[in-house]
Amino acid sequence: MKREILCFDNRPHFRAVSSVVGDKENDGPLSEYFDMYFTDTKIGQLTWEKAETELVRHAIEILFKKSNLRSGDIDIIFSGDLINQCTVSTFGILEQGIPTLGLYGACSTFAEGLLLASSVVNAGYAKRAACVTSSHFCTAERQFRFPIEYGSQKTPTSQSTVTGSGAAIIEAGDVIDEISKVYINNAMIGIPKEMGITDANNMGAAMAPAAADTIIRYFRETNTSAKDYDLVITGDLGYEGHDILKKLLCDSGIYAGENFTDCGIMIYDTKKQDMHAGGSGCGCSATVMSGYFIKQLSQRVLKNILFIGTGALLSPLSVMQGLPIPGIAHLVNIRVD
Amino acid sequence: MKREILCFDNRPHFRAVSSVVGDKENDGPLSEYFDMYFTDTKIGQLTWEKAETELVRHAIEILFKKSNLRSGDIDIIFSGDLINQCTVSTFGILEQGIPTLGLYGACSTFAEGLLLASSVVNAGYAKRAACVTSSHFCTAERQFRFPIEYGSQKTPTSQSTVTGSGAAIIEAGDVIDEISKVYINNAMIGIPKEMGITDANNMGAAMAPAAADTIIRYFRETNTSAKDYDLVITGDLGYEGHDILKKLLCDSGIYAGENFTDCGIMIYDTKKQDMHAGGSGCGCSATVMSGYFIKQLSQRVLKNILFIGTGALLSPLSVMQGLPIPGIAHLVNIRVD
Repeated sequence: MKREILCFDNRPHFRAVSSVVGDKENDGPLSEYFDMYFTDTKIGQLTWEKAETELVRHAIEILFKKSNLRSGDIDIIFSGDLINQCTVSTFGILEQGIPTLGLYGACSTFAEGLLLASSVVNAGYAKRAACVTSSHFCTAERQFRFPIEYGSQKTPTSQSTVTGSGAAIIEAGDVIDEISKVYINNAMIGIPKEMGITDANNMGAAMAPAAADTIIRYFRETNTSAKDYDLVITGDLGYEGHDILKKLLCDSGIYAGENFTDCGIMIYDTKKQDMHAGGSGCGCSATVMSGYFIKQLSQRVLKNILFIGTGALLSPLSVMQGLPIPGIAHLVNIRVD
Repeated sequence: MKREILCFDNRPHFRAVSSVVGDKENDGPLSEYFDMYFTDTKIGQLTWEKAETELVRHAIEILFKKSNLRSGDIDIIFSGDLINQCTVSTFGILEQGIPTLGLYGACSTFAEGLLLASSVVNAGYAKRAACVTSSHFCTAERQFRFPIEYGSQKTPTSQSTVTGSGAAIIEAGDVIDEISKVYINNAMIGIPKEMGITDANNMGAAMAPAAADTIIRYFRETNTSAKDYDLVITGDLGYEGHDILKKLLCDSGIYAGENFTDCGIMIYDTKKQDMHAGGSGCGCSATVMSGYFIKQLSQRVLKNILFIGTGALLSPLSVMQGLPIPGIAHLVNIRVD
């Protein structure tokens, strides 16, 4: 029999979270929850890639400030981003000198990082592990679609890559404050799913089947259902992918009701801000989880959530070569008693 | 105190390894050890990227054939490659439907995969975990340097990206044959190091400081020295990086003698094949470890080795933007009693 659920009996819990965003994210409904924002898309740097590195650098600095820890206190850091080949996040953590494992799960990377950080802490490989991911609208558009200087029109199903970086420290042991009561109970690794989507402007549709697969497998393996959780939060399916997910779950006999939400839907006031199908990118679920949801759990407004980070595993080259876009979705169950 | 060594007390061991290479690798001195080779650089596909995907697909198929296992027997697979954004390896494992964690550690990815596969098996998160990485000369040249059609001259320090894919299955429990006596004793995660190298044709120099750092930390933490191991094998420093590593270690009082070798040096007959500074790429150490070294251990020709996978964390964009190239090096100690 397959072991599909990673159980964390030693209660790996959050020590600190941080979130740094750009202007548009700060204009959205979650504005008050983020730790820092920048109005200049270049953050005083010469390139947008260096600006994205600055987002990571600040997210890490805030993390240390909040936790009263320093780089020497972190045994392992998991990092990743969308910019080939994960250079942005590497440069953002370089000066810290922490043992580093680079990840690539597209927009699911923050969930992948939380899953692995919890795994290594729970198993005792690390006393403390961190994870950090980032994305930037201008770096992602240039890489995956068109440089923004082209002024190309966006399609209705397109999502807007979040400018932001989110980070977290996971540790085991003593509960010292409200945030350290928030623990990762278990997790499930995603299986890549590909359903024939070839449109790089419809990430939601590419990722929804993977999200559905992970949720269905998780409910089956844990013998639970949606009503057992305060919220079931997908990473960045946006409006398009969220609707598809609900239909796919319905086809499998799972009712996805009011407690299903999505970080890509939440981060912008989509209509007022003209953000089409919502937000996406490695920084989307990272900032919404770190900025908003973990705080809601630490304040016990929420007590038991599923976070399903979703990623679209495309590259500009794979799309140009006519290949479809596989999706992946990693799940973590985050709780407070 | 930092926990720098990941100890694997439950003896995660190899169940099977596989290696698939291209023409030039098959013309090299390790020819007889590889499981399969292709003379056509496109392996009958329309693009080199699809050909690289075929290398991965075949490596996985051989792995299952050798182990008499199927995809349902693998709980987690760690995969990665050099082509943005790890699309090649994703497509190579897609049809298997195995829970997948994508990695990015450049040419160190196979060591990162072995380290994480051993970690999850040792901790009981998985009964069996696999790892697979790949690279292809033509896809890597196009992405990182120039399309090979340009016929650009190579510099003396440049390395040749290996066309190949290597894979391994790690499991705990019963020792059933010679290869399952080969176990991963412990591991150490690399710290990114950047020493000002900006030349994308001198990967060896970019990676050597990270390799030196990991080796020095490992010897210190384990209170061992080079003479305690049959071989100390770096991933793909090539001739240039290997010389630099020896000098850096010498500066730290460590004599790197005859038992130091490098997969990038071993895979080609460098002079006869005109391969400049040697081989590199995610497929280099993956095929040399899977094809040659694990077999040497299973035959007890070697009994205790250090494998230090080395990666250069650059992208075409970071190089064009004038950024230096950080290196990283992950270590695994592989033994047979």
